[in-house]
Amino acid sequence: MQPRRIKHWGWGYEDEPDTPQFLIDNMESYFSKFFGVSEFNTIAVPALESIALRKPRIDIPERFKDFCTNTHEERVRHARGRSPIDYVKIFNGEYENPPDVVAYVRNEQDIIDVMDWAVGAKAAVIPFGGGTSVNGGVEPRVGDGYEAVITVDTTQLNKVLEVDDTSRCARIQAGALGPDLEAQLKPHGVSLRHFPQSFQHSTLGGWISTRSGGHFATQYTHIDEFVESMRVVTPSGTVATRRMPGDGAGPDPDRLFMGAEGSLGIITEAWVQVQGRSKFRKSIAVFFDDFLTGAEAVRGIAQAGLYPSNLRIIDAEEARVNFVSDKNKDILFLAFESADHPVDAWMDRALEICADHGGQFDRAVMDNPESHRQEEQGRWRDIFMETSYYREITTPREIIYGTMETSVTWDRFPEMYERVTDITGRAMKEATGREGSLSCRFVYVYPDGCAPYWSWYCLGNHGALIDQWKHVKKAAIDEMIRLGGSTTHHTSVGRDHMPWLNAQTDDLFRNMLRAAKRTVDPSWMLNPGVIIPPGT
Amino acid sequence: MQPRRIKHWGWGYEDEPDTPQFLIDNMESYFSKFFGVSEFNTIAVPALESIALRKPRIDIPERFKDFCTNTHEERVRHARGRSPIDYVKIFNGEYENPPDVVAYVRNEQDIIDVMDWAVGAKAAVIPFGGGTSVNGGVEPRVGDGYEAVITVDTTQLNKVLEVDDTSRCARIQAGALGPDLEAQLKPHGVSLRHFPQSFQHSTLGGWISTRSGGHFATQYTHIDEFVESMRVVTPSGTVATRRMPGDGAGPDPDRLFMGAEGSLGIITEAWVQVQGRSKFRKSIAVFFDDFLTGAEAVRGIAQAGLYPSNLRIIDAEEARVNFVSDKNKDILFLAFESADHPVDAWMDRALEICADHGGQFDRAVMDNPESHRQEEQGRWRDIFMETSYYREITTPREIIYGTMETSVTWDRFPEMYERVTDITGRAMKEATGREGSLSCRFVYVYPDGCAPYWSWYCLGNHGALIDQWKHVKKAAIDEMIRLGGSTTHHTSVGRDHMPWLNAQTDDLFRNMLRAAKRTVDPSWMLNPGVIIPPGT
Repeated sequence: MQPRRIKHWGWGYEDEPDTPQFLIDNMESYFSKFFGVSEFNTIAVPALESIALRKPRIDIPERFKDFCTNTHEERVRHARGRSPIDYVKIFNGEYENPPDVVAYVRNEQDIIDVMDWAVGAKAAVIPFGGGTSVNGGVEPRVGDGYEAVITVDTTQLNKVLEVDDTSRCARIQAGALGPDLEAQLKPHGVSLRHFPQSFQHSTLGGWISTRSGGHFATQYTHIDEFVESMRVVTPSGTVATRRMPGDGAGPDPDRLFMGAEGSLGIITEAWVQVQGRSKFRKSIAVFFDDFLTGAEAVRGIAQAGLYPSNLRIIDAEEARVNFVSDKNKDILFLAFESADHPVDAWMDRALEICADHGGQFDRAVMDNPESHRQEEQGRWRDIFMETSYYREITTPREIIYGTMETSVTWDRFPEMYERVTDITGRAMKEATGREGSLSCRFVYVYPDGCAPYWSWYCLGNHGALIDQWKHVKKAAIDEMIRLGGSTTHHTSVGRDHMPWLNAQTDDLFRNMLRAAKRTVDPSWMLNPGVIIPPGT
Repeated sequence: MQPRRIKHWGWGYEDEPDTPQFLIDNMESYFSKFFGVSEFNTIAVPALESIALRKPRIDIPERFKDFCTNTHEERVRHARGRSPIDYVKIFNGEYENPPDVVAYVRNEQDIIDVMDWAVGAKAAVIPFGGGTSVNGGVEPRVGDGYEAVITVDTTQLNKVLEVDDTSRCARIQAGALGPDLEAQLKPHGVSLRHFPQSFQHSTLGGWISTRSGGHFATQYTHIDEFVESMRVVTPSGTVATRRMPGDGAGPDPDRLFMGAEGSLGIITEAWVQVQGRSKFRKSIAVFFDDFLTGAEAVRGIAQAGLYPSNLRIIDAEEARVNFVSDKNKDILFLAFESADHPVDAWMDRALEICADHGGQFDRAVMDNPESHRQEEQGRWRDIFMETSYYREITTPREIIYGTMETSVTWDRFPEMYERVTDITGRAMKEATGREGSLSCRFVYVYPDGCAPYWSWYCLGNHGALIDQWKHVKKAAIDEMIRLGGSTTHHTSVGRDHMPWLNAQTDDLFRNMLRAAKRTVDPSWMLNPGVIIPPGT
């Protein structure tokens, strides 16, 4: 199975390069209606052939030519992720850090061989799955300490190797893209049910490396919870962890590699828990007049031990910008699902909690089995996976589209909501001289807190978009960190978030990670600059 | 609050030293009925004063005399945990590794000062909470590389410092014993609901260090899942992790310290999630004719997404030896509880699954709100926390009482059950020349596997009890590890399980841990011999 490839300058497949027209219409209409902007200073994306790259700095030895390449196209495709900075530079045709070689590894031995080669060549090694990092995790921005960069593309490792129906688990190669692994699981009647927004173009290994967030809004939120064991190739050897449902023997090795974002090794496969296909489902949209009141209902449900699959509240502005609703209400998308039993009792109690907090809903919609595809629910469902197209629409039009997400305990959320809203609004004005818009939603919810996600839009200026974006982003995340939040809940750290990761962790813990890294990567070649800062 | 202390030679408080008579009667009656043993070659426990200890090898500097002691009594009390080996040696009066000093630390600075002192004195430092380790985790068996041993007793750090009602969390000092922290949480209407069998005499810090298993049989099984953040004092400084509900920024620092069993630092406090007091409860005992068929029902419930608080099946022999039932049936204890809502729908579905697998039960008992205190349920409930007294009954009577527990995926459980049953039975005969009895229960259950727990009893010989026990234990755990199980699910590794921990992990991962340890503990003083093997 050769996966279809993402187009080099945005989202979607290279054989369907057009941006969905309705998304362009939506975005232009929103800016016309709310900012009075009807014409955009739109630039075109440079053709792939026209992009200037520095020459490869190393040659591919004969024995690697079966799976390594340095064609212009492959180097362009592996030179950038999908961060706001990447998009600006893609549209400007700036590719200052292309890899010198792309290795399409076919097995663990290829990875071992490439790592050996890289040591001798003083090259950095960048693990690359789907390449959808939104925080500079895959761009070979490694500084001057390396004589070359070899990007290891894992997408040939794309097989479901084994399914254990009894334990409801599967052994899957790390380079399998979301749709590919689901297609292979389907004949077994199971699903990983891990659907990050990047699902179409991201891989299992990328999800585990970055502690991705998936389908379930509560309880089983991170991919972490589904991993039983993994294999990780490092320059010093391969670590294979033991497949166990609930170990308690010493520190968990899986948890050291999860979140290392390729800085400690390249994951080649994992045993993961899979889910039965859900047969019973209830879903509904609940409307609130005030976001913080809605958030209290969400907290009530999260603390009730009901574990809905969906418990995502979006504020009125989020509904507006995504053309989900013009009711000017905050909307809680609430759903329960089960492969085993009807979920009525669960939903009934959750709706009682909503009603206690002034939530407004029409129970009758639940009688319609297609309700999750209709009205606000349907429109949110339709748009959710499509928002990955937004940056290829906004960037050429000089629109800055920024996002921030974090996790925070409930006691601190109201202050954070107020402060981030205030600071982001002011920062957009400072950076661009113009008002912007800001919206918030919850992506994941826990008994002890939530993972809020902010999106903001404002008109910037070509040539200054990165600085303008950085100004706003820094102001907002500085405040999030100051108020006790996390650098990221589920969208990775990458190179762009390193200052905040350093702010949220102790020196001493970072020194422990450095020592662990030196053990497996003594040449410090693996994704340098990401997660583990070079030390003294 | 000065906690009541455990008696030095067994279980229970020092002010109530007697072993509960009914437990003695039960055990003697069981051996009489099933092994025809009516007289035991019983020895007495040596009085505390009569125990011979080597002299303290270091003096306590003047400035430490406020909180450090080297009295005979304190050194005896901190010389042993509660493993089968400890019990034999306690009854033999063998205390070959007493600490030289016991430091009752009052705050983090005391710990820092003691660590500084220990570096200069070339002393090992043994963290000691309740001292209930069943695997040699607190015995100062550190080899000849140290000139002394200082045991750091954390039980003065016993306060609930803060309760966050909104996020439903509490900040608790690590030395708080189970009953102490529950007493302090109670006025806030919340509970940690973490009840390992050692609850009466073990501490929060001990639970976190050893990845203890608690109240809930499914989903939230390990204390790990409840920890938001912690503070850990190491010889190189203090690591404070950030309080967050669901972080995804880099490898989780908490997960590196959890399970380190004091080898990476001494935990001083943690923010942990607490639970509302449960208001709704349904519980029932379900009987099966065959353990593996009962296990299939358990798997069905575990994979149904129902999350019972109790889902523990005990086999007929486990019921017999604990005087829970003489029906010669395997018994599944099934319960749902909630602080928020009635749990009838949950229980109804779980019972359907039981019925599908031939489970026999009387629904009427659920109408009785006291049913969980009656019949099999009540007897199991009553005995469960009391089994910690067993070894002070068996050891002086020459009875070997061994336990093993592991975690294993469902697909491998039936083979493991058969093999461990067979091998343990044969090994008892080999070791003692006599038949023994073996029983099995599940302690925790996951969608992808279970944590089985075996107990075995046979009559041994004074003078040979440790070797006899080791022979059986080794045969059984070797096989558990060979079949893919874990060294331990929830009762710690300690010194006694290190060979199997080494067998279940890669050299390379152990090297990573060694490097991390060297960073925080360059003198390698912290609980040496536990979890992280000394390296080259």
